[in-house]
Amino acid sequence: MSLQDSVLRGDRLAISRLLTEVENDTTAGQAALNELFTHTGRAHLVGITGAPGTGKSSLVNQLALHYRKAPQPLKVAIVAVDPSSPFTGGAVLGDRVRMRELSGDSGVFIRSMATRGSLGGLALATAGMTQVLDAAGFDVILIETVGAGQSEVEIAKLAHSVLVVDVPGLGDDVQAIKAGILEIADILVLNKADRPGVEAAERALLGMLKLGHPTKHLVQHHNHLEEVLAPVDAHVDDWLIPIRRTVATEGEGLPELLEVLAAHKAHLQNSGDWQRRERSRLHTQLQDLVKQTLMAGWRSNVTDAQYADALDQLVERKLSPRQALQALLP
Amino acid sequence: MSLQDSVLRGDRLAISRLLTEVENDTTAGQAALNELFTHTGRAHLVGITGAPGTGKSSLVNQLALHYRKAPQPLKVAIVAVDPSSPFTGGAVLGDRVRMRELSGDSGVFIRSMATRGSLGGLALATAGMTQVLDAAGFDVILIETVGAGQSEVEIAKLAHSVLVVDVPGLGDDVQAIKAGILEIADILVLNKADRPGVEAAERALLGMLKLGHPTKHLVQHHNHLEEVLAPVDAHVDDWLIPIRRTVATEGEGLPELLEVLAAHKAHLQNSGDWQRRERSRLHTQLQDLVKQTLMAGWRSNVTDAQYADALDQLVERKLSPRQALQALLP
Repeated sequence: MSLQDSVLRGDRLAISRLLTEVENDTTAGQAALNELFTHTGRAHLVGITGAPGTGKSSLVNQLALHYRKAPQPLKVAIVAVDPSSPFTGGAVLGDRVRMRELSGDSGVFIRSMATRGSLGGLALATAGMTQVLDAAGFDVILIETVGAGQSEVEIAKLAHSVLVVDVPGLGDDVQAIKAGILEIADILVLNKADRPGVEAAERALLGMLKLGHPTKHLVQHHNHLEEVLAPVDAHVDDWLIPIRRTVATEGEGLPELLEVLAAHKAHLQNSGDWQRRERSRLHTQLQDLVKQTLMAGWRSNVTDAQYADALDQLVERKLSPRQALQALLP
Repeated sequence: MSLQDSVLRGDRLAISRLLTEVENDTTAGQAALNELFTHTGRAHLVGITGAPGTGKSSLVNQLALHYRKAPQPLKVAIVAVDPSSPFTGGAVLGDRVRMRELSGDSGVFIRSMATRGSLGGLALATAGMTQVLDAAGFDVILIETVGAGQSEVEIAKLAHSVLVVDVPGLGDDVQAIKAGILEIADILVLNKADRPGVEAAERALLGMLKLGHPTKHLVQHHNHLEEVLAPVDAHVDDWLIPIRRTVATEGEGLPELLEVLAAHKAHLQNSGDWQRRERSRLHTQLQDLVKQTLMAGWRSNVTDAQYADALDQLVERKLSPRQALQALLP
């Protein structure tokens, strides 16, 4: 049986192997994805992001447990993405240990990625891996990102629903720090809600929500092809971003959070935003692929010596950047 | 007289006009930059970043004032970059108002950018604008970024020296949030140092510095051409990232900060890192230009209808992303 057939049957070893092929962008992985892609598009992709220390991993574990404990249990995959940093190097390993409580359950699949390399490459690898898991029949794919920054935005573009996790007890300055992340939120989670200051934190978040119009900006970045895309956010204003309190370590607030996630999925489907986000998501993936392919094609036509020579002349100010560009184009 | 000649003479109106041309990436702007580029490479580029609320703008103003008040006054340009966000939309205007105290001084030039659009485009525009100001004879160019995220890293790659600004009084959770920014710091500034908790904040920063090896990662991202670049960070370990306390609104700690900046510049020049950073910086700019040019060339060969058709088939799962890619390549 081919690798992709085994994946379609839900064979865990085959899934693991294919995820590795896709993560490494091998020819075999590309070929299998071509075959599997027709079986994708069904899973609910949920992105979970927020600053370190907000308890994202516990929340992700609890989301998985509650999806499994629901009257109609859903199959859940977790993809933990860590754009590696010397400062957060330990996080993924810690998550793995904590996730052992889920590991006996065949309806749960957990995968960590700590790939180094470019953001574009990371986003492409993550997109491919969620497609493998989607084809393998997982109903919900939780994409957890560690760290803060552009990677969150890139990864969030992969998700239908984006949870942004916050905690009480951070000062006003800190609320401000998260403005960039807030923009991509569909649902706000105030975790560690048993801490003092939860009302103040919720008020601060509400204030920020009123200040801006989040989600409006989700798909506008890097979008140079507005003309061929349906207006992605035409209906987004109908969705009022809810704030939900949780104490993930105790499982408190999790049933309510699952309800909100289901409501958001229904909203996306009823409003047509599900299709629009799919389209925008695949548009982004296609653009990343084009960029990667064009750059690789260009690079294979320029020798190291040619490039080094152009760069030398640039450093010596004998060529301007644009003149160096001309020298390196066919 | 040509626009570029007027810029070389330091004509403020000409500088303003050319900055606009470069920001908009016009043909005239590109042509002028080609001519001017040979006059660049002298200015000390200083990036200033940090979370909103840390007082970056006051610090930038004070840096400019102190450079002007020094025994040997330096000409200072400020480029305030705001990758626009609905949440930070007001910041740039606020900065402009505050910077009025500098506006009578012909040795100071202030420019705000609130360009929407892709990060790559913003980094390219900022690079071009700093080159105009460099050619126009400014000794120090302060590049201030508003917001937090990938843009900081992109913009920081433009600078020789990166100041990361922090404030006391944020909890441990918050120190963690800044890990990604810390990685790009050459100098840490603890602003608002008259606040309680300054010792604890400094200890926390020192702890984080010991945890990781910042600056090591400055130029490794997106660097697919390691083989043609000299090892950029070979000597960086010699520079121990200093932490300096300031109260920018009172001008406290500013002379000491200028000393550290001068020391960092001397360190870069003596160690050869100045040349390595120049090379790495121009490499990044060249890569961005290649990417932009290849994508534009590809896009001009694909009709909107062709692209929309491929995207339709992708959304309908008739083509996989890689098959859609093949359909759109020549």
